[in-house]
Amino acid sequence: MVAIKRLNSADAGFTVALDELLAFEGAQDDRIEQTVAAILADVKKRGDAAVIEYTNRFDRLSAKSMAELELSRAELEAALASLPAERRAALEAAAARVRAYHEKQPLQGWQYEEADGTLLGQKVTPLDRVGLYVPGGKAAYPSSVLMNAIPAHVAGVGELIMVVPTPDGEHNKLVLAAAALAGVDRVFCIGGAQAVGALAYGTATVPQVDKIVGPGNAYVAAAKRRVFGIVGIDMVAGPSEILVVCDGSTDPDWVAMDLFSQAEHDELAQSILVCPDGAYLDRVAASIEKLLPTMPRRAVIEASLSGRGALIQVRDMEEACAIANRIAPEHLELSIADAEQWVPKIRHAGAIFIGPYTSESLGDYCAGPNHVLPTSGSARFSSPLGVYDFQKRSSLIRVSKTGAQTLGRIASTLAHGEGLPAHAKSAEFRLD
Amino acid sequence: MVAIKRLNSADAGFTVALDELLAFEGAQDDRIEQTVAAILADVKKRGDAAVIEYTNRFDRLSAKSMAELELSRAELEAALASLPAERRAALEAAAARVRAYHEKQPLQGWQYEEADGTLLGQKVTPLDRVGLYVPGGKAAYPSSVLMNAIPAHVAGVGELIMVVPTPDGEHNKLVLAAAALAGVDRVFCIGGAQAVGALAYGTATVPQVDKIVGPGNAYVAAAKRRVFGIVGIDMVAGPSEILVVCDGSTDPDWVAMDLFSQAEHDELAQSILVCPDGAYLDRVAASIEKLLPTMPRRAVIEASLSGRGALIQVRDMEEACAIANRIAPEHLELSIADAEQWVPKIRHAGAIFIGPYTSESLGDYCAGPNHVLPTSGSARFSSPLGVYDFQKRSSLIRVSKTGAQTLGRIASTLAHGEGLPAHAKSAEFRLD
Repeated sequence: MVAIKRLNSADAGFTVALDELLAFEGAQDDRIEQTVAAILADVKKRGDAAVIEYTNRFDRLSAKSMAELELSRAELEAALASLPAERRAALEAAAARVRAYHEKQPLQGWQYEEADGTLLGQKVTPLDRVGLYVPGGKAAYPSSVLMNAIPAHVAGVGELIMVVPTPDGEHNKLVLAAAALAGVDRVFCIGGAQAVGALAYGTATVPQVDKIVGPGNAYVAAAKRRVFGIVGIDMVAGPSEILVVCDGSTDPDWVAMDLFSQAEHDELAQSILVCPDGAYLDRVAASIEKLLPTMPRRAVIEASLSGRGALIQVRDMEEACAIANRIAPEHLELSIADAEQWVPKIRHAGAIFIGPYTSESLGDYCAGPNHVLPTSGSARFSSPLGVYDFQKRSSLIRVSKTGAQTLGRIASTLAHGEGLPAHAKSAEFRLD
Repeated sequence: MVAIKRLNSADAGFTVALDELLAFEGAQDDRIEQTVAAILADVKKRGDAAVIEYTNRFDRLSAKSMAELELSRAELEAALASLPAERRAALEAAAARVRAYHEKQPLQGWQYEEADGTLLGQKVTPLDRVGLYVPGGKAAYPSSVLMNAIPAHVAGVGELIMVVPTPDGEHNKLVLAAAALAGVDRVFCIGGAQAVGALAYGTATVPQVDKIVGPGNAYVAAAKRRVFGIVGIDMVAGPSEILVVCDGSTDPDWVAMDLFSQAEHDELAQSILVCPDGAYLDRVAASIEKLLPTMPRRAVIEASLSGRGALIQVRDMEEACAIANRIAPEHLELSIADAEQWVPKIRHAGAIFIGPYTSESLGDYCAGPNHVLPTSGSARFSSPLGVYDFQKRSSLIRVSKTGAQTLGRIASTLAHGEGLPAHAKSAEFRLD
């Protein structure tokens, strides 16, 4: 028996139990913070030499120069050419769909002129240079390359620098093929805090970037948090999560497998099912028992489901949506016969998978939307990675001579109120 | 003589000298980090009691309960009613212009359906609850209240919680009046890391928010950086900066005063003038000498100009724009006769003030665009505060039964390639 938690919203201690289920503190580990701070300081000071040392130590390599850790365009193209036809076709199809979706996203500038000739607006420009972090280690993700690089490209970013650790020198051909396909400009086989430091500060070999995106482990997350401000970062990602809200009409095997697909990522991944029908929860539990032994990654799945998973019985679908908003999940499946009608009730979720045919895995790879999504409840305040993350805005203000008369008086009054007389005088100088 | 630095781009050491001029490391002070970490941990653990203790200690108060530190709606309204008519009118005019500009900004959701019935899109929702940090201390800024609260309101944020320290119990009527005008829901007279902690974790009295915005000192910046992930934050703000690019045609007194208006904020504020005409730089230097003795805040201005200011002679306007992009200034004045034609050359700036009548101070108060802008070169990767900072996106994916056949095969192939068999199986279950 998989010891997956059963909760019922009608129980007295439910709110507390739900809070406990969701409680997770990942990256704020003092030892990790100190290690990362030391690595970043060292990379900042010694550049390439430090990056090479840490890479050799942590990834068990023996590189003598950064040149050995950089892959050429030819190597990327060779990886793409070497793929079996079916894999290459799948990767190309996924890339095309991801590109098509993201082409709807770019921000547009705008401006308007007032009666007195004053012009106001917003100019939109792409970032000059972006660093893409692609995890190596336990699992290597070509799909991550597509999901990070394509929006940057669509935004018009000038140069894309990818970093990917290659522990024991093992390269993942699909990852390199994806980099070729997505038009990554340079690839360095480095990872961890040392890669984040190289991108943030720049070294003799690795160019300094303006923003670092992409998921990583606790060290990468801590490093990104520390360099935030020097460069931009996307979200600090936590473990992946899925919340399935089901009305009891979906094949329980499908739902069990959807929960597995999240659980197989990581022992800390979180899979939760919410349903008003207790008997249906029993059927899903039975499907879990039946299907688990068939899964190659069953140990990880079982650890994740018993440690962080839950089957939650609720009063009704209204309450299910309220719980979804409380959780603000990274992935939300509305596995409901009339799923569409519940979408307006959802305020917080990274991605909403509508209807029983929309398994999260389709979104992970090829539906089109980004799979880099806000985790750990951060969908309350943040968005999927998108083209907009690779653009920024500048305000445009052109005050006419006439406009300066009106605005100057207002500004002068308020500046005096704030005790900033030079502000006031600067406005007053423009008065007739 | 104000010892303001003179640089010339034709000099051999110019690039190094420019790097040195711009080098600034503010918030990463170990002592500050440790103090802030301790305060945050304490607020998280002890809630209101800790907030009250720190507030009493740092702001020299003797509050016994959080209730004493909260202002009622009536108190805010009274502050607004008590303003002299001219100030009130100026504040209302500024609020109206800021609102009109920001009403152009809201993100809109979108969706599209493919031939096989698959639907893709993006849903946009406002944040539920936002915390607004308003600095007290050296200077109190009613304009900050407008600039933070109005975009949140336009976005449709459910509840706005403002925190503002009141050292020695001194309330700023203009700040409270601005809060009344901008529709802030609750105001707590707390500041520093303890206020950031209260907003991020919530206490018995202060509701937990989803995002914290607004500028603050090094302690506030460090605290925001630490709680990032638990809540959203805007930028970690550094000292304010202005870069004036001038062709030599603007009254040198105007430019000198524009430099002062930045310098008067803070000894660490940075005012730089770039111009191809060396004789014009001499005239501005003479204006600085002439005008400085008339300024009430001359000590701060002189410290800022001599410590961090510069007059830079360049070859031509092209080079001036290249330097502007290198600096990526918070405020960029194009004080140029034909200013408009140079706007397309500017890639990185928080706000671009076009033409000699557009003094930065007009933008600070009432032109309409936000005055919360990316500092310390972060305009390379980030944007002015806006309505979009109070909204977030959720991806929408509804795969049809037919769509699941195509997408399922692609996803299955890629999932096997990534070694994630449950992902593959979840897609395969949906195949006929």
